[in-house]
Amino acid sequence: MSILIKGALLRGEVTDILIEGKYIREVGPSLAVTADSCLDGTGKAVIPGFVNTHTHAAMTLFRGFADDMPLMPWLVEKIWPNEAKLTNEDVYWGSRLACLEMIKTGTTTFLDMYHKHQSTALAVEEMGLRATLCAVAFDHFQPEKAEKAKAYIRKSFDDSMGYSKRIRYALGPHAIYTVSGELLQWLDEFANENQLPLHLHLSETATEVENSIRQFGLSPVRYLYKLGILSPRLILAHAIWLDSDEIRMLADHGVKVVHNPLSNMKLASGMEFKYNEMRDAGVVVGLGTDGCASSNNLDMVEAMKFASLLGKSWRKDPEAMPAGEMVRMATANGAQILGLNAGEIKPGTLADLSLINLKSPAFTPNFNLESNLVYAANGSCIDTVICDGKILMQDARVAGEEEILEKAAAVAYDLMKR
Amino acid sequence: MSILIKGALLRGEVTDILIEGKYIREVGPSLAVTADSCLDGTGKAVIPGFVNTHTHAAMTLFRGFADDMPLMPWLVEKIWPNEAKLTNEDVYWGSRLACLEMIKTGTTTFLDMYHKHQSTALAVEEMGLRATLCAVAFDHFQPEKAEKAKAYIRKSFDDSMGYSKRIRYALGPHAIYTVSGELLQWLDEFANENQLPLHLHLSETATEVENSIRQFGLSPVRYLYKLGILSPRLILAHAIWLDSDEIRMLADHGVKVVHNPLSNMKLASGMEFKYNEMRDAGVVVGLGTDGCASSNNLDMVEAMKFASLLGKSWRKDPEAMPAGEMVRMATANGAQILGLNAGEIKPGTLADLSLINLKSPAFTPNFNLESNLVYAANGSCIDTVICDGKILMQDARVAGEEEILEKAAAVAYDLMKR
Ligand SMILES: [Zn+2]
Ligand SMILES: [Zn+2]
Repeated sequence: MSILIKGALLRGEVTDILIEGKYIREVGPSLAVTADSCLDGTGKAVIPGFVNTHTHAAMTLFRGFADDMPLMPWLVEKIWPNEAKLTNEDVYWGSRLACLEMIKTGTTTFLDMYHKHQSTALAVEEMGLRATLCAVAFDHFQPEKAEKAKAYIRKSFDDSMGYSKRIRYALGPHAIYTVSGELLQWLDEFANENQLPLHLHLSETATEVENSIRQFGLSPVRYLYKLGILSPRLILAHAIWLDSDEIRMLADHGVKVVHNPLSNMKLASGMEFKYNEMRDAGVVVGLGTDGCASSNNLDMVEAMKFASLLGKSWRKDPEAMPAGEMVRMATANGAQILGLNAGEIKPGTLADLSLINLKSPAFTPNFNLESNLVYAANGSCIDTVICDGKILMQDARVAGEEEILEKAAAVAYDLMKR
Repeated sequence: MSILIKGALLRGEVTDILIEGKYIREVGPSLAVTADSCLDGTGKAVIPGFVNTHTHAAMTLFRGFADDMPLMPWLVEKIWPNEAKLTNEDVYWGSRLACLEMIKTGTTTFLDMYHKHQSTALAVEEMGLRATLCAVAFDHFQPEKAEKAKAYIRKSFDDSMGYSKRIRYALGPHAIYTVSGELLQWLDEFANENQLPLHLHLSETATEVENSIRQFGLSPVRYLYKLGILSPRLILAHAIWLDSDEIRMLADHGVKVVHNPLSNMKLASGMEFKYNEMRDAGVVVGLGTDGCASSNNLDMVEAMKFASLLGKSWRKDPEAMPAGEMVRMATANGAQILGLNAGEIKPGTLADLSLINLKSPAFTPNFNLESNLVYAANGSCIDTVICDGKILMQDARVAGEEEILEKAAAVAYDLMKR
């Protein structure tokens, strides 16, 4: 199976792109080749598929259910009681809705951490995206719960052997305040033995840091260092409240970090994400939307704009977080974090890409595609999405989208009434 | 001419809306009426048209032309030299592009301040929106320039008599650092005599406040007070760097304020817009996008989200700036600021409204329409726009949009090459 994209704008040049199987094979002007199918790229620009490196896909079911609330009542009264009721069917439909939303806004890969990840896997298989799905682990510092968590990880890892190559299994210890040091070390060892990513929320709020110092005698990154689990497999979400020594420690151990500007702003977790310092220290930083309960959508285009404007404003520096770096954060950096040969449009990389429809006010005039994409556009600019060499969306339409919307809404309403 | 909207969601209820001439005539379930034309509101929600209370419409021509730059080089090297070349034709096409973009994102009214406003007026007449257009005035503290400005205001005010009722003429002294106190007083008097709004950028940056204290011995609001020009006609854009006494002074004199969160973040002007304090003091606060050179698009849905998330994050309060208040800021408050009988869907108000297409991930599930609109959606959710009782957009299509995009882009490219 091959696809030829004819005459799309790539880095300012009108270019053809030949896709064969899962890979981009050739890139250049007026390729003299034929293909099984041809896409007209006129008036369109091609960009790598976005990699959303932190989300909780099935939380689309909670969209708009409880906003403008302080953290603890929100969790205790609204989120946790309803999460406790979630069935496999709920997670499956919530995940299909998330996949639909991601495809429509140009995301081809995501890193997920949520309950019943097997149902998310099913949705991802059917919807055609690529995902790294974490099995959630926590023990609330109770040894018997730690043993249950280990058994769950062993079992779900074995089950993950049946997944297609688009899905990768990973470990998702929730946070250092819900997972004991002993379980974190066991998970790290398991991850090492089986070559798996380990994904953890860390240093999201000032309170978390204070509690870490009170409980463990150390700030969160120092605590992970003492546990011996800083490694290139570790992917941290948030990582806002870090000092410069902690950034150095992350860089020294090849730890990856995911910035979630919308979630951090909406929940008032903290603004001062130290992107410049991490970048300069050599930490690879990706971009995430977080789940729809905290940031309400999965639009990576919007996330790029929020990342840039938030960084400029707290630093009081209009030159900070320029558009081009935001695009890299949302594409190439994400691919690097997840170990994917993707995130760039060139021969030999995975055929995970999108076409932007340039016939809109956001791209008029089009002096600078990346500026327009980051500062003027939103996810609705995406016209066509290809993942793993297959067309997932064309003319802004995804097959079966009405059914997904209807079914996911019904599941969400039913969940809250149960 | 009458329009009947059948079965759209309004404040949670399935409702019909009858429009006769320029006004909403009846609102209720299953109205037993007929109309010249009928719009099917199934699967749609109706909201008041947005009122963008601060922009520079024709600056769409500068979209993406120079981003990620510090303020002074940006102005001196990129903006001013090109603004000096602007022709009436340029402003006309830039304004048409702006009108197109506003219609597509649900804005029915805007407050504009830009050179050659007569060409913007022409675009507004043709595109069918409502606008208050400021004639720009500045004298750079030179008496002969002040006299020229006065002559220009007298002349352009006379010319404005030919405008349709959708357009209102206003006075736009640029800022206190470009307009002398003497000219500000003259403009205030002219505004009073002729019942005109007076629109001014104020307290946008910390530097502006420092300079005001150095130059006039007073902070900006106190300086305006001393000049005697605080009044209910005065509409201030930005007003970030205010102390509590200044907020009290604005409230006491009925001065209106426009918040521009995207511009303030992108240019790193300041984050701490004191919405809560102004609201509690009784200052009417509207929402603006500012021009596309600073904020890159004219999407009021995005502006509501930025306003809310920025407010929550700098205040460290997830309850601040709730969705419902953001919608009011973008609709009813804007209408109040511009003296319009609009901004709410009820009998007797101007028929300025939009239909949202709810069949999208952003509105799935739909537990709370305002939450979804502010936190999950963007301007692309708008399906139908009616202004002054006339349909400006239906099925997300505006008549002649391709021509506007092409012509405005050509004008912008030509401008920068001239
Ligand atoms: Zn998270
Ligand atoms: Zn302005």
